[in-house]
Amino acid sequence: MTAVTVLGLGPMGTALTRAFVTAGHRTTAWSRTASTPAPDGATRASTAAEAIAAGELTVVCVRGDAAVAAVLDPIGDLTGRVVINLTSGSPTQARSRAEWAGERGADYLAGAIMTPTPSIGTAAALTLYSGPESIYGRWSETLAALGGTARYLGPDPGRAAAFDVSLLDMFWQSVSGIVHGLALARAEGISGADLAPFGRTMAGLLPDMVAGFAAQLDQGEFPGTRSTIASAEAGLAHITETAEGHGIDASGLRAGLDLIRKAMDAGHATDGLARLADVLYPGESRAQTHRM
Amino acid sequence: MTAVTVLGLGPMGTALTRAFVTAGHRTTAWSRTASTPAPDGATRASTAAEAIAAGELTVVCVRGDAAVAAVLDPIGDLTGRVVINLTSGSPTQARSRAEWAGERGADYLAGAIMTPTPSIGTAAALTLYSGPESIYGRWSETLAALGGTARYLGPDPGRAAAFDVSLLDMFWQSVSGIVHGLALARAEGISGADLAPFGRTMAGLLPDMVAGFAAQLDQGEFPGTRSTIASAEAGLAHITETAEGHGIDASGLRAGLDLIRKAMDAGHATDGLARLADVLYPGESRAQTHRM
Repeated sequence: MTAVTVLGLGPMGTALTRAFVTAGHRTTAWSRTASTPAPDGATRASTAAEAIAAGELTVVCVRGDAAVAAVLDPIGDLTGRVVINLTSGSPTQARSRAEWAGERGADYLAGAIMTPTPSIGTAAALTLYSGPESIYGRWSETLAALGGTARYLGPDPGRAAAFDVSLLDMFWQSVSGIVHGLALARAEGISGADLAPFGRTMAGLLPDMVAGFAAQLDQGEFPGTRSTIASAEAGLAHITETAEGHGIDASGLRAGLDLIRKAMDAGHATDGLARLADVLYPGESRAQTHRM
Repeated sequence: MTAVTVLGLGPMGTALTRAFVTAGHRTTAWSRTASTPAPDGATRASTAAEAIAAGELTVVCVRGDAAVAAVLDPIGDLTGRVVINLTSGSPTQARSRAEWAGERGADYLAGAIMTPTPSIGTAAALTLYSGPESIYGRWSETLAALGGTARYLGPDPGRAAAFDVSLLDMFWQSVSGIVHGLALARAEGISGADLAPFGRTMAGLLPDMVAGFAAQLDQGEFPGTRSTIASAEAGLAHITETAEGHGIDASGLRAGLDLIRKAMDAGHATDGLARLADVLYPGESRAQTHRM
């Protein structure tokens, strides 16, 4: 059992606190908002300094990187303290916060929580960590209280956030497509219930597509055997016109059309759609070298 | 067995022709490009008029609605002809093309092919049809040669295209997110192979999300129990900054941020993400009425 401190009692911080309590750890929690209660079984500290002093391990989960600084800065010296920062942010923020914490003497690990609040403490949770391997190794058993799958991604403290933003990028734009398609269906008089079975089938193609596109990008080969950039252009043009005809903002689709046209101008009309990743961020791949 | 004619020998027209031949139908095919061969077992007609005269049923699959007119217009009278148009297009195009075909005397059905070329003739195919039910009923057995699942969606000839554009909207924006996330990962030094297992898991959440969001939109209730619009805003801001910091165009993400901020300004910060469909195309729902 570990004495664990959680700084931050928003929905995620509360879920983390509850998971540590459930796993039997002596848990202290604190929030800037004095009125926020700690979950049953956890001790509510009255200051962040008091909270940190109570724990062998401090988990920080607040709203954004600026709030991390606001919470930890008044403490001053963090020598001998172990800080695991699960606050969402960019890779750049994660790297500079790690440096900042190191300057204050903390043993510091950066993490990212990939799954929503209700998953914490269950098999569905996914957490990523990066920073010194020795710190992860020492505390991974305690962190197992958060449930599900935990992965250590290497010493670069920005790496967990880099995975986080890449996966959230995929996820968010997919969500954006789902709500946009539902809005367009509604405008066409199609109920969610009528569209859902087809939409479910269509979305079921996406996991294999992620894996297939990822392999193509690594290889630098983009065969247009299933669908080509040129055929996507025709389809996207219909969707965009139809959405705009209903007064539905289609700037996300227009961004896609712009990318497709850029790829076509670069001579990739008959390539598969994974080529678009290479157009967004060109890499040095074997295939490109061979093509010279 | 039916005498079937296919107009159009692009990749999809060729796949359709092959599927009719395989199913044992006497199949005639034609393409504007004189050099394009018909698949083995099909007869190549030298004019569109000759092709149409050879079939009890004519399936049209060319590149866009304008090409449909260009192919059929010279024929003139279509009285007694059965035309099933599987050319992709918008619902508006489908409705006016149905009217146009009716004026020329054709029995006309509008369809949409939802799955890629290699699926045609296999269990994976999905085709949608709309227009007069009697025409669908009479020819559905012949059309079963295309394989997989066929669905009749009602008499409005634009309905198959309306499902098509709504589903492609979801699909395209998801694809857009996958390639964008892969590009961002590459910029952060993460290989496709390293990201793919997590991306696959993340994409595996989407089918249930489609169904859940669809039900919420029908109900007009958008509980923020899993994730809220306000929390998506923070995440999206990190992704957008990180992508732009690498010189990756992020206009698709910016479109999402604009929508989220519009939803927040309208007081929906603590709603779930399905609310965004309602913000894109506001509907009259029970819940909205109750809320007055």
